[in-house]
Amino acid sequence: MSRSPHKLELHPDRTFPADPATRDVARRLYAAVEKAPIISPHGHTDPRWFASNAAFEDATSVFLWPDHYVLRMLYSQGIDFAALGLTARGEAPQQADRRAIWRLFAQHYHLFRGTPSRLWLDHVFAEVFGLDVSLEEGTADHYYDVIGASLARPEFRPRALFERFGIEVLATTEGATETLVHHETIAREWGRRVITTFRPDDVVDADREDFRDNVHALGELTGLDVDSWRGYLQALRLRRADFRAHGATATDHGHPTALTADLSEREAERLFQRAISGQASTGEAELFRAQMLTEMARMSVEDGMVMQIHPGSFRNHNPWLFQTYGRDKGADIPTRTDYVRALKPLLDRFGNERALTIILFTLDESSYARELAPLAGHYPCLKLGPAWWFHDSPEGMLRFRRATTETAGFYNTAGFNDDTRAFFSIPARHDLARRIDCAYLAELVVTHRLAEDEARDVAQDLAYRLPKVAYRL
Amino acid sequence: MSRSPHKLELHPDRTFPADPATRDVARRLYAAVEKAPIISPHGHTDPRWFASNAAFEDATSVFLWPDHYVLRMLYSQGIDFAALGLTARGEAPQQADRRAIWRLFAQHYHLFRGTPSRLWLDHVFAEVFGLDVSLEEGTADHYYDVIGASLARPEFRPRALFERFGIEVLATTEGATETLVHHETIAREWGRRVITTFRPDDVVDADREDFRDNVHALGELTGLDVDSWRGYLQALRLRRADFRAHGATATDHGHPTALTADLSEREAERLFQRAISGQASTGEAELFRAQMLTEMARMSVEDGMVMQIHPGSFRNHNPWLFQTYGRDKGADIPTRTDYVRALKPLLDRFGNERALTIILFTLDESSYARELAPLAGHYPCLKLGPAWWFHDSPEGMLRFRRATTETAGFYNTAGFNDDTRAFFSIPARHDLARRIDCAYLAELVVTHRLAEDEARDVAQDLAYRLPKVAYRL
Amino acid sequence: MSRSPHKLELHPDRTFPADPATRDVARRLYAAVEKAPIISPHGHTDPRWFASNAAFEDATSVFLWPDHYVLRMLYSQGIDFAALGLTARGEAPQQADRRAIWRLFAQHYHLFRGTPSRLWLDHVFAEVFGLDVSLEEGTADHYYDVIGASLARPEFRPRALFERFGIEVLATTEGATETLVHHETIAREWGRRVITTFRPDDVVDADREDFRDNVHALGELTGLDVDSWRGYLQALRLRRADFRAHGATATDHGHPTALTADLSEREAERLFQRAISGQASTGEAELFRAQMLTEMARMSVEDGMVMQIHPGSFRNHNPWLFQTYGRDKGADIPTRTDYVRALKPLLDRFGNERALTIILFTLDESSYARELAPLAGHYPCLKLGPAWWFHDSPEGMLRFRRATTETAGFYNTAGFNDDTRAFFSIPARHDLARRIDCAYLAELVVTHRLAEDEARDVAQDLAYRLPKVAYRL
Repeated sequence: MSRSPHKLELHPDRTFPADPATRDVARRLYAAVEKAPIISPHGHTDPRWFASNAAFEDATSVFLWPDHYVLRMLYSQGIDFAALGLTARGEAPQQADRRAIWRLFAQHYHLFRGTPSRLWLDHVFAEVFGLDVSLEEGTADHYYDVIGASLARPEFRPRALFERFGIEVLATTEGATETLVHHETIAREWGRRVITTFRPDDVVDADREDFRDNVHALGELTGLDVDSWRGYLQALRLRRADFRAHGATATDHGHPTALTADLSEREAERLFQRAISGQASTGEAELFRAQMLTEMARMSVEDGMVMQIHPGSFRNHNPWLFQTYGRDKGADIPTRTDYVRALKPLLDRFGNERALTIILFTLDESSYARELAPLAGHYPCLKLGPAWWFHDSPEGMLRFRRATTETAGFYNTAGFNDDTRAFFSIPARHDLARRIDCAYLAELVVTHRLAEDEARDVAQDLAYRLPKVAYRL
Repeated sequence: MSRSPHKLELHPDRTFPADPATRDVARRLYAAVEKAPIISPHGHTDPRWFASNAAFEDATSVFLWPDHYVLRMLYSQGIDFAALGLTARGEAPQQADRRAIWRLFAQHYHLFRGTPSRLWLDHVFAEVFGLDVSLEEGTADHYYDVIGASLARPEFRPRALFERFGIEVLATTEGATETLVHHETIAREWGRRVITTFRPDDVVDADREDFRDNVHALGELTGLDVDSWRGYLQALRLRRADFRAHGATATDHGHPTALTADLSEREAERLFQRAISGQASTGEAELFRAQMLTEMARMSVEDGMVMQIHPGSFRNHNPWLFQTYGRDKGADIPTRTDYVRALKPLLDRFGNERALTIILFTLDESSYARELAPLAGHYPCLKLGPAWWFHDSPEGMLRFRRATTETAGFYNTAGFNDDTRAFFSIPARHDLARRIDCAYLAELVVTHRLAEDEARDVAQDLAYRLPKVAYRL
Repeated sequence: MSRSPHKLELHPDRTFPADPATRDVARRLYAAVEKAPIISPHGHTDPRWFASNAAFEDATSVFLWPDHYVLRMLYSQGIDFAALGLTARGEAPQQADRRAIWRLFAQHYHLFRGTPSRLWLDHVFAEVFGLDVSLEEGTADHYYDVIGASLARPEFRPRALFERFGIEVLATTEGATETLVHHETIAREWGRRVITTFRPDDVVDADREDFRDNVHALGELTGLDVDSWRGYLQALRLRRADFRAHGATATDHGHPTALTADLSEREAERLFQRAISGQASTGEAELFRAQMLTEMARMSVEDGMVMQIHPGSFRNHNPWLFQTYGRDKGADIPTRTDYVRALKPLLDRFGNERALTIILFTLDESSYARELAPLAGHYPCLKLGPAWWFHDSPEGMLRFRRATTETAGFYNTAGFNDDTRAFFSIPARHDLARRIDCAYLAELVVTHRLAEDEARDVAQDLAYRLPKVAYRL
């Protein structure tokens, strides 16, 4: 560790195939998409940033605290969250020594070798902050100072960065009871390029302790009687309309499984009564979520909102950590996910609707070739979202293309989602996705499975056109 | 789309590895197998073609209507089957404008970028019809005319093409109640190179609405009392003998799962009575299919027929489409498939029989390395069929070899099956499989895992010798 | 087969990537680890060899009879075990013609093309025995003679080979009731470099017919009342201490599934009483194994022993073979294995313990990216063992790195295990693992995902430092 620090430089050929001929093709394809505007149709940035346009604070609060990829890796190697400045629930927040925490992170930066976090962070450090040495123990203070000084400058305010990053449209994600006040401010002050997405998990998941409170909040917001099944559905309809009025073109559904159901109205109503009275068993809560996916599809057929289904994460797998530090700390673990049987009730009802678009995601790669590509390669309503979360990485994205393209083609996929709350990394993530798509396409070209000009068309479609079409932007 | 059309040319190195040294080895290996006769031991061509030797009609009826890969992709992109000239059940068949349909297909040919359908079709267009421009909107009529004119010529009749394609033997697949009259004609008029395969699904699957009718048809055909368990089994034995008399060396079993059972005779008889009286529950129907696989294995030990098991397809997943347009329209979806527990009853009974050959297929690639290669690498009766259906593609076939070879070796695999009803594509499919096997072998050679002359032996075995041995041809 | 025999030479670049630039990097990385001492923290060699230091006998008894990879492949191709000289249970052992058996093996050596067995064996033949022609029918006698003559020489005795192989530490695996007399001899006569590992499966698996006998043997060995839950646990504690006194730093658990449980003491006691009285149902036996994993974790927190969990093998899948020839004959088949739900009870209890290390293995590669990497990338107590058994092969090890690194990084993995009873192959296996790790790292370097000096650090960590740290050696 006493050696002089590495130079930090982003090689122009990074993540391109090693074979020189394939790399040449990849370079040419990438040149056609490198500068395309960023379409970010699904993510978790905070609309408040763009509403207030306040300066970001420092390296630690920007790059470490909100990044569950970073937190999980450090935690897995025995670093306590207290040492990282996180405050346990019920404890008084303390004045963390953010510089000391940044040094701790820098000391452990080698843990990220071979991970996409390393690629994204290095991209941000080099491209956004102009850093030219690698992050390690000896450069930690230099990093902290450079980043801190930069963030204080006006051109590092959220709206300025948004322009600099070349973002054409950015979707955030809000719960069913959120007021969308920040989106209103953004639209009024700055024009609408930050749109919302309707994510009703908090009012359809009867397993949550706050489910009934959330539904009643929905009732207050809409002035409807949400204790009746019809009133509840109508309240959701109203909120969908509100969200559309704030730019939303899509809904999002993060369920433990992809299960759907198609109950009779009477059965659905009875199930809702069990849920809203707090009596739903685990199985009934699962069935209610399942039914609600089908209800959401029904509303999407009516109002044209694109559905996204993100199933298969076992949230908060570590109960001690959840109780102590709360959610989104890196303790969500993927599970095996079935689609073929799970989606059938919904598809039996709406699968042939051309007016409907459902974008499917998975954390279970074994379903790419076995289930998802065959489903999306048949049903008019289905499209495949990109490699998600743990799989949004060079190898992960390559596996996605290799496993899905031969059955579903490119045109049943929906381009890239960055799905991030790490605003600074958005260009890095889109850049990486474009590079990997070009790498894959270059392989097809060099092995004479696709002509180069067709590959260029596809690269441009994947980078720009397909997400706009799929998300109806 | 207004640019001049692409040249269509099949690059001699297509699908070979990009690395120049590896490509050189692949070329040399391929040279040793390129011209080997085609052994097609499993497929779905129509024996009537070879019996009647009538001319094929036109591009649309040859390349679009029967091809579920093509239909599914077009349907997934919102193209209605009516627009493609398919007649819904119960509707009067209309005079479809086949040329207009072909134009519609040509306009959407870009959807097939990156899919094996594109590779197969381009191969057929270039090699069989001598077309030298790519299929697109502007060349649709040219294609339609060239193909139509060619098909009218005597050298495009089925038997002539069979010779031209270098097919040594071609197996079709017939149900248990089919009369095999076409095979009889073929044998009488043309010599037996088109053989049948015994596929009894229609008389062993009690979930089918026509199960009882089928069994009774079996009774009529054989003159046996098929309402008794013994009579039913004896009828199957007779039909197997009939099939063997028409060249069959194999049976084929397309079950929803790979479940087998080994019931006592009494239990089996009771179960059969439930089935034949139309009272079998879903579970009983599954158990009956399971038992019948074991019965078929027992008969195979007696009569030497090779068993093929093709499990794991959820047939007709889209009920509206099935009701409207029938089966084989691209709505069959793979499901997760277990082999280790499912096959155990059969293997416990017959797994160590050297006289028995069972060729296993899967649509669930997660079973390649986990279950299938270990099973085939141990049980004398088991061999692995090639990458099947959705996986019969460059990436899919490479994944198959990479995942199975290290455990099962090459010699527990059974060479290639084209498994197609698309007669024109048979040479294209065998060519692609040979190319991919050579690509994989070339990697072994260049990474010094196998000597080149051994690799050449293996390439020849995979292309020609292994399917002949496995299928006892 | 009449051609002159192939030269046998181990190419210095074997298993390195084909691309020349990547190969160059791989060579340089490998040069930094090629000669590193071998750390073998998990395996199945026989401690008697090192205690007695007696000469090995001949090629057949060394390379064929104990190697279940070799036996399974030959058996799968219809070669009877009797022809290979194996004695069926209950038969009088016959004087097998070992040379004739070796010839039979040589005739079938082509079956191993493309398998790691071929790579390991060729490595041993060339490196250990100096053979320079390939094994085939015509060289069988030459091999048999050279190997036999070599084995008779003092430098081929176990301890001499141990030195020659550069082994720093070698762990064997012993059951809970073994006396460790050989390890005592080794320590007394030769110094402790062969350590034991505590594998209590025989006294925690109530499905075994010998479970109660084993537990009672445990009672006799420890002088404790093992018919009580507390006495049983205390006996296990004592035996763990004995094992630690013989160098053990780890325990190992080979369960059918990864299920864990966290019962109340009362429930656990009641379950133990069912088990020890021979009344446990299949489900109760599974629950008891599950509870015992948690008990073992509790003891590991106390005594610092590293836990290894090797789940997911369906042992003795072929009952006829098991009854006739016993276990470890190649009839163990992997099954689908869940970790996320299965490990939760144990992790809920001990997952955040920094004092605990659990090394997880799998035979179900679909869990690498979906479950294992996310779990190990979060929980402080979890590390990933290397690609196991059927996956300890060039493609298998590459898949492991590709699927796990992007989520878990390198530092949540535990280096290589050879896990073998084939002592002669230990250097070959470690060499292959080092080569594949260098191949993977070289890809990261050439695609500019990792600097070369960082990759060299990682290569050295994977080859030497990480197993020492993970196993607390």
